[in-house]
Order: sequence, then C-alpha cells, then structure tokens
Amino acid sequence: MTFKSIEWVNNKIKIIDQRLLPEKVEYIFCTNIQELNDAIKSLAVRGAPALGIAAAMGIALAAHKSCAQSVDDFLMEIDINAALIRETRPTAVNLFWGIERQLKLLKKTNCEIPEIKRLLIEEAVKIAHEDEMMCKSIGDYGSSLVKTGSNILTHCNAGGLATGGYGTAVGVIRSAHRQGKKIHVFVDETRPLLQGSRLTAWELKEEGVPYTIITDNSAGFLMKRGMIDLVVVGADRITRNGDTANKIGTYSVSVLAKENNIPFYVAAPYSTIDSKIETGEDIKIEERDPLEVTMLKGVNIAPDGSMALNLAFDVTPSRYITAIITEKGVHSPPYDKNFYETKIFSQGGIK
Amino acid sequence: MTFKSIEWVNNKIKIIDQRLLPEKVEYIFCTNIQELNDAIKSLAVRGAPALGIAAAMGIALAAHKSCAQSVDDFLMEIDINAALIRETRPTAVNLFWGIERQLKLLKKTNCEIPEIKRLLIEEAVKIAHEDEMMCKSIGDYGSSLVKTGSNILTHCNAGGLATGGYGTAVGVIRSAHRQGKKIHVFVDETRPLLQGSRLTAWELKEEGVPYTIITDNSAGFLMKRGMIDLVVVGADRITRNGDTANKIGTYSVSVLAKENNIPFYVAAPYSTIDSKIETGEDIKIEERDPLEVTMLKGVNIAPDGSMALNLAFDVTPSRYITAIITEKGVHSPPYDKNFYETKIFSQGGIK
Repeated sequence: MTFKSIEWVNNKIKIIDQRLLPEKVEYIFCTNIQELNDAIKSLAVRGAPALGIAAAMGIALAAHKSCAQSVDDFLMEIDINAALIRETRPTAVNLFWGIERQLKLLKKTNCEIPEIKRLLIEEAVKIAHEDEMMCKSIGDYGSSLVKTGSNILTHCNAGGLATGGYGTAVGVIRSAHRQGKKIHVFVDETRPLLQGSRLTAWELKEEGVPYTIITDNSAGFLMKRGMIDLVVVGADRITRNGDTANKIGTYSVSVLAKENNIPFYVAAPYSTIDSKIETGEDIKIEERDPLEVTMLKGVNIAPDGSMALNLAFDVTPSRYITAIITEKGVHSPPYDKNFYETKIFSQGGIK
Repeated sequence: MTFKSIEWVNNKIKIIDQRLLPEKVEYIFCTNIQELNDAIKSLAVRGAPALGIAAAMGIALAAHKSCAQSVDDFLMEIDINAALIRETRPTAVNLFWGIERQLKLLKKTNCEIPEIKRLLIEEAVKIAHEDEMMCKSIGDYGSSLVKTGSNILTHCNAGGLATGGYGTAVGVIRSAHRQGKKIHVFVDETRPLLQGSRLTAWELKEEGVPYTIITDNSAGFLMKRGMIDLVVVGADRITRNGDTANKIGTYSVSVLAKENNIPFYVAAPYSTIDSKIETGEDIKIEERDPLEVTMLKGVNIAPDGSMALNLAFDVTPSRYITAIITEKGVHSPPYDKNFYETKIFSQGGIK
C-alpha cells in the first residue's frame, strides 16, 4: 500500500484528503478538534473504521492540547470535545466506538494529566494499528469465499482509505489478489460523491487489480446477464440481527443480488456491530446537502431551484446478506446467534 | 407545453438541443442527413418516439434534398439514406418503424418525384402530430392508475422531449397533474447522462409538477421506506411477450418495485411493440463511449486510464411489469395475448 488514510504524526492528525482524489494526493494536518471535525463533516476523512480511528485520535488531540490544571477540568474538557466529535456524523457506529474506547481508558486510570495524555495518544495509535491487522484478517477470511476467475461487484469505498489501511470489502479483494487469484472487480461509481469511481478505482489501480467502473444503475443488469459472481461491501453499522447500514444503494444491490442468486457479503470489523440495537429500524440515517446531488464539482446538473433528497446511507435487512465477514471469521445467519457464539479466532486476528 | 422537441420547419428539421438543457434552450436546424445523424448519435435528439419522428423526417429531408432525375435513382438515394439513419442507434425500435412507414408509403405510390417528395414530408409531419395525440391518450389512460396524493417514481426522460410532445411516462404524470390530482414525483437522476435531473426535472418544473431529484441508487431504499406509490417509465422496445428495453437502470427499478409490492408501469406508443421479436433476449443493447461514465461535463471523475462499461439500455422481463400503457389502453399480462386482443380504443386515441 502506498498510502495511509490517517496517522498520528508529531502530535497532529495527518489525513489524506479524500475529496481531492484521484486527481491529487494531498494531506491535511489537523492541529485542533475544529479542524478534525471539519475534515470529518466534509468527508476529507470518511469510512466507518477510519472514523473510529479519527474519533480516538480526536480525543488524543483534545487531551494533548488541553491546558487544564486539574484532572476534573481536564476530564470536563475531554467530555466537551467528545460531544463535539459525536455531532459530526450520525450513522457509523465506529465513530462512537472510538470515543467510548478512549473514555473507558480514562475511567480506569488514576494517573496525573501528562501521563493520561500519553496513554490516550498511545491508545489512538494502537487502535489504528489494530484496525490494519483486523482488516488483514477480514481480507483473509473473505478471500476464502472468492474463487479464482471471479467477477466481484463492490459499492462505495470500503478500502484502505476507509480504514487504517488495507480495507474491509477492498481488503477481501486485496487478499484474493495477493494470493494470486485472478479476479476482476466491477466498481459501482456510487453517486453522489463517487467514492467508487474516485476512491475504490484509485486503490485498485494502485494495487494492480483489474477493474471496470459502472454506473450504479448498471449493476442489476450485469447480475442478470451473469457477469457478476459475488458482491462484497463494507458497513457503517450492523445491528444484533445482522441488519446493515451502509452507503446509499447497498440495499438495492442486495435485493438485486438475491433476485439473481448471487452471494452478497458484508465485510466489517467486529466493532461495527452495535449490540445496543436490535434491528435496522433504529439506525439514524444521515441526510446530507441536496447540492451534493444537483451539483458536481461546482457544475450545476439540474434546473435551478430543484429539490433533491440526499440520504447518505440505507439499511440492508439481514435476510439479503449471505454472510458477514469480521476479523473473527465468516458469520452466517442467524446473525444474532452467530455473532456472539463465534469461537473462531484466526491466527492473524485480534483476540 | 412551452417547447417542441422536433419539428419540420421550412424544409429543415428543427431540434431542441437536449445536450444543453437545462442551462440553455437552443435549437439545431438540420439541413441534411449527416447533420441529423450527428444529432441522433450525440443525443441532441433522443427518446424512442422522438427518434421515430426524427427518422421519418430524415427520409423526408433526404427526399427534399434529392437531385435525382429518375424515380429509380431517387428510390436508390432514399434507400442509402435509410441505411445511414438505421446505423445511428440500435435499440429503439421506433427509429426503424419511422423509416419503414415512409418506405411503405413509397412502395404504394406511383407519382412523379416532386409529388413523392411532398407526400413524404406530409407523412413525417403527420407522424409527429399523431405522436402527440397518442401521448395524450397514453397519459389519460395512465392517469386512471394514479390516485391523488401519489408519490411517483420515474427513470430517465420519457417526456415531451423524448416524443413529439407531451411524453409517455411524463405524459401519465402530466395528465394526472392537469386533472387536478395532487402528485409528487421522485426523479431518478439517471446516470451517466442525467436525463432525469437535466430533462425530466426541467419538464416537470415547466409544467409546475412538484418533484424531488434523487440519485439512482436511492430509489430502492425510498421504496422500502414506503415513500413511493407507483413507478412509471418509458420504453425503447417491447417484445411480443412484454419484455421491455429501456434506459439502463430500469431493470433494477422493476426488481426493487416488485420486492416492495409497488406497481411498475411501462408507458409507450403501440409502435414500440416489436412484433418480430419474441423475448428481450433478442434485443440488441447499445454500448456507448466509456468516457460518458468517467467524465462529466469535461471533468474527469475517475483515475486516468480507468476502464468503464457503458450499456445504454437494459431489458426488464415482463414478469416485473404490472401493466403496459399504450394509446390503445392499459394492457395487463399475459402481454402476448393482450397486445393483440386489445379492442379498447380511446376517444382521443389513434385508431
């Protein structure tokens, strides 16, 4: 891999600016929470696992910047910053998970402020490293489902950019490719922000995996024509029963895959499973600026004053999902049972 | 209606340049077949019924321009020009139908060249007029299927722009609106060329019908959320059994509608039914320039050198189609039986 989506460097958060890809590879250095939150909201950094890392690094950054003299003041400052980060994006559970993991650490510790700061930074860096290991494990488990010669469809970008590196859905593709399987990927362009044609295509090109970009509305017909052997996508939140929130359009792909008897896999770290939520009905769906639909790169593509609805995510009911791949293994339905009974730990997996 | 998509004016074919909408309303005047064919290939004029008119007017234009001295030379010239028009776009049957109707007229006539020229021009103008009447009839039949308060989804542009005026799928919407039914339309933007957000949105705005533009990949989730009551789309070719070729993405919408128990209607003139073809398997699907996918308005939206597949149409099997609306009435399955047994003629319909 030739890039890191997010890194802790010299007490700054270094982020590859995904808004500029594939034209330019440029980095942003966030030196305070405001800058980080702007980067999250504007999708300079995006992707559920990457948001988990960003949130944990955000807490570390808030700690590092704190001038509080007492532990109480310090903790209050962290709480305020945690609240600000939580308000950036509502759907991906990993963002909340990254914050919670840092707050749990805070609760356990009795140290002085400088030591707490060091621990929070250490934890954020550890989370990023774990994420990369987890993705490799997800990729290797997922690759077992991919035969050589397969045509794989993916939607949006669940790649190295959306994680600490390697990727989840793209991780599965990456592992299969590195194991020497001959594969070809159909990349849904993923309107409105084109994470497929801009980001996934860029990652596959860097990795040397053959790919073809298609409009989102082509995927169904390619399935019907027998041109797609399996689908693999990422996830922003998975409920106890396996319902999965992911980029808008995922639901449609899942229905079309089922109609055409094509396996539909979700690949995500175990932390994407939100055990507090029973079904997808309870997941909050982010609605974004309509201008993302009616304008493209500053060019108007609809009549002036047109209304547009821009839901960023949808929910795929678990009945359309053939299996969910985490770093712990390949989970089959019924998910509520199999998520919690999984005893399979991979050699490379996180225990 | 404030526009005519295609008109015979002073022995020229006047075409609204759909490539420039909605920013600019500009007209092209085709004075020879080369100019007309360029306009068809580049989608300055598009839409199955409009292509039927364009083809018939093309034959009239070729006749008008002919300097042939003998009837044999004249007929040969017409044949050559018919072949050139046939090569422009392969999927919409109406284009071939428009040519055939003129050639049939030619076969029947025994007149001198000037009189033949006059007849061909008259026939082309008549076809355009008939199309408008047919669309009104389609709209009125279709409107009987639309309840007040309905949220209607449409894909691509089967509007006044795609016909001689009024529209087919948009004709249904137009009739319902003019009959005072309170309706709202979700407009699939329809990548890659955005006929939905550019053209259908523009027509609905002109007509005063409330609408909301969505990305193509949102339609399924809106259906699942109960936000869509019915779907109506146009057609480029309908086979004897009711299989329907239409803009890429139509198949996906039909599967999603069926999965969510939402009626899915196809609206098209009877001439769109290609009685020579039994099923959709035999329809030739046009593949267009990949740059339509990887570039938008001259801006690159994918990594340099990316492959893209750009199928312009897909085929929706008749089992996903609730009914097909023509100027002769509302046809239910089984279509092979009901297309040919239809005895219902509307007052406004073409008999």
